[in-house]
Amino acid sequence: MHRHGGDIYRNQNKIDYSANINFLGMPQAVRQAAKDAIDDAVHYPDPFCEALKQAIAEKEGVPAEWIFCGNGAADVIFTLMLAEKPKEALLPIPSFYEYRQALESVACQIRTHLLLPEHQFCVQRDILEALKKRPDLLILCNPNNPTGQLLDQELSEEIAVQCQRQGTRLLMDECFSDFLEDAEKHTLLSKVAENPQIFILRAFTKMYGMAGLRLGYGICSDVALIRRMEAVSQPWNVSVPAQAAGIAAVKETAFVEKSRALIAEQKAYLLEGLQKAGVKVFGSAANYIFFRAEEGLEKAMREAGFLIRDCGNFDGLTEGYYRIAVRGREENEKFLEALKKRTQNIWQNQL
Amino acid sequence: MHRHGGDIYRNQNKIDYSANINFLGMPQAVRQAAKDAIDDAVHYPDPFCEALKQAIAEKEGVPAEWIFCGNGAADVIFTLMLAEKPKEALLPIPSFYEYRQALESVACQIRTHLLLPEHQFCVQRDILEALKKRPDLLILCNPNNPTGQLLDQELSEEIAVQCQRQGTRLLMDECFSDFLEDAEKHTLLSKVAENPQIFILRAFTKMYGMAGLRLGYGICSDVALIRRMEAVSQPWNVSVPAQAAGIAAVKETAFVEKSRALIAEQKAYLLEGLQKAGVKVFGSAANYIFFRAEEGLEKAMREAGFLIRDCGNFDGLTEGYYRIAVRGREENEKFLEALKKRTQNIWQNQL
Repeated sequence: MHRHGGDIYRNQNKIDYSANINFLGMPQAVRQAAKDAIDDAVHYPDPFCEALKQAIAEKEGVPAEWIFCGNGAADVIFTLMLAEKPKEALLPIPSFYEYRQALESVACQIRTHLLLPEHQFCVQRDILEALKKRPDLLILCNPNNPTGQLLDQELSEEIAVQCQRQGTRLLMDECFSDFLEDAEKHTLLSKVAENPQIFILRAFTKMYGMAGLRLGYGICSDVALIRRMEAVSQPWNVSVPAQAAGIAAVKETAFVEKSRALIAEQKAYLLEGLQKAGVKVFGSAANYIFFRAEEGLEKAMREAGFLIRDCGNFDGLTEGYYRIAVRGREENEKFLEALKKRTQNIWQNQL
Repeated sequence: MHRHGGDIYRNQNKIDYSANINFLGMPQAVRQAAKDAIDDAVHYPDPFCEALKQAIAEKEGVPAEWIFCGNGAADVIFTLMLAEKPKEALLPIPSFYEYRQALESVACQIRTHLLLPEHQFCVQRDILEALKKRPDLLILCNPNNPTGQLLDQELSEEIAVQCQRQGTRLLMDECFSDFLEDAEKHTLLSKVAENPQIFILRAFTKMYGMAGLRLGYGICSDVALIRRMEAVSQPWNVSVPAQAAGIAAVKETAFVEKSRALIAEQKAYLLEGLQKAGVKVFGSAANYIFFRAEEGLEKAMREAGFLIRDCGNFDGLTEGYYRIAVRGREENEKFLEALKKRTQNIWQNQL
C-alpha cells in the first residue's frame, strides 16, 4: 500500500527523480506567503476558501461556484467518489494509482480498459465502444500519469459529448497540463459550461512545487455536485498556509513560463541521453518521461544515489517500466552518467 | 451548511470567542518548526507519518501502529466512517456537528439520544439501555462539545465494556481532554489495549493553537481498522508543516501546563462575570463555557465586536444557547463589560 514516488523519508541523501515536481521548487513569493500564513494558523481555515476560489476563478475564467478546493488533488478525487458513489467506473490503465484506491473506498466496481504498448499507451477510439456500457464514471488523465501521453483532443471532445448524452460523469485529470506549452489545446475547460458531466481536476502541487502543502481543485458546472462534495467533506480540508500559497501562486505567470522553457530544454537533453543509453521512451508530454528498460533499474539507480519511479506495480504494466521527472542540468548530467553505467551493467548481468 | 464558530473571514476586526482554541496561540517552537517545514514542502509529505507517529506514540505510551493521523480531527472522523461504513449509529446530542455530517457521508442511519437540560446535558445511565439495540457505532465526546460537560468515568468504562461485549465501535472524542487538569482520570486510553472497540480521537488543533495547520489523530488497538482507514484515505493527507508542527508540539509540556493554569484562572474570572450578568452556565470542563441567555445575544455581541458561538443550530438545542472560549484577562474584561450591557438591553427589549 502507498508505494509511490518521492519517498525521500526512507531514502535520504538521494536525488529524487521519482516525484513529478517542478525542479525549480516553490516560487519565492509563494514560499513567503505560506510562511507568513503560519502566523494566522491559530485560526481555523476559511471553510469556504472564498479568497482562494476567487483567485482560481479569475485564473481559469470560470465562476467561483464551479470550484471545489481540496487537500491536494488526491483529496478532490476521494471526495468526488464519496459524493458520487459510482457503482461502476471505466478506468483506462496504466494510470494514477489513487483512482483505484478512491473507487475502492466507495466499493465501486472497476472495469479496466487496457492501454497497449503497441499504441504507445495512448487512448484509442475503442474507448467509445467501452463507454457504451454506460458506466457511472469514466476517468481520464491528460497528460496521463505515468505514461506521459496526451489524449487526442478530437477524441477527448467526442468522449465528453458521449458522456453527456448518456449521463456518465467524466473525471478529466489535467493535473499536469500546466507543463504543456500549448495547454489551451489540450483541455476540456472550454466545454465545461455546456457539459455539466465534465469534472476537471487541477493541482498546484506540481507546477508550484508545493506537494507538501497540499492543494488541488476541481471545476464542474454541475453546481449541485460541488454542493454534494462540500456536504461529504470536512469543512476545514484546506489548511491556512495552503490557501495563502494558492492565492500567491496564481500570480506567478512569469515563473510558469520560465519553468516551461527550462523543463522543455532539460527534457530534450534527458531524452537524448536516454536514447543513447538504449532505453525505449514512450511519452514525455509533461515534466516527466516514461520509458522501458531492464528490470532492476530502480534498485541499481537507488544504489547510485537516484530515486526513480518503478512503474512495475501499476495496473496494466509489468516490470521494466520507469518514470523519471525532469530536473536541472547538473543533476541530469550525473543522472545520465549513472544511468548509462547501470543499464550496461544490468544488461551484462542478464546475458 | 458549515455554520461554525471561528468565521473570522467574514467577521474581521472582531475578537473571536466562538472557536475553542488556546488563547495563548501556537508555541514559538511549533511556529518555527512549521515555518522551517515550508522549505521542505516542495516534497510530498511522508504518507506513513513515520516520525510524527513515533512522537505521538511516545507521548501517549502506545505502539505507533495503533495511530492514524489526519488532516485535523475532522479528517480522522470522516475517514473512520468511510472505513467502518456503519449502518446505524447511536449519537447523543447536542454534540459536535461533524459527527452527523460524517455519518451522513456514508448514508448511516443516526439514532439520536437526547441529553437534557435538567441533567445539565450530562450523559446518564439510560445510554446503556439505548446501547442494547446494538448500533454499529456509538459516538461520545469527553469533555463534550459544545456543552463542556464531562462523562462520569465509571459510566464511561461501563459503556466501553458493553460496546466490546456486543461489537459496537466506540468513538471516544477526547479532543479537549488536553485542557483538563486531571486528564488521566477522564480518558479511556488505559482501556485501549484490552478493548479494540475503543477508538480515541485526539487533536493538536486546540491546545497548540494550530487549527489552521490541521492535525488530529486516532488511537485504536484494532490494527486491522487502522489499516482499513489507511486504505480509504489518500496517502498524503497530513501536510509537511503539520507533521513538523506535531513533532515539535509533543515536546511542549511546559506550555501545556502554563496554558492549563492560565485558562483555569481566566475561566474562573469569566464564570463569575457570567453569573453576575445573569446567564445560566451549564458546563465548562475544558477551555470553553456553555451557557443559556437571551435570544439574539450572538448578533448583539457581534455588533459589539465579539464573536460568540450561537448554539441554536445544534441538534438537540434551541435558540438561546451559547458557547464562548476562554481568552486572556484584558479581552475578558472588555467581553464581560459588553455582555453585561447586552444581556440587560436585550432583556429590557423582551419585557
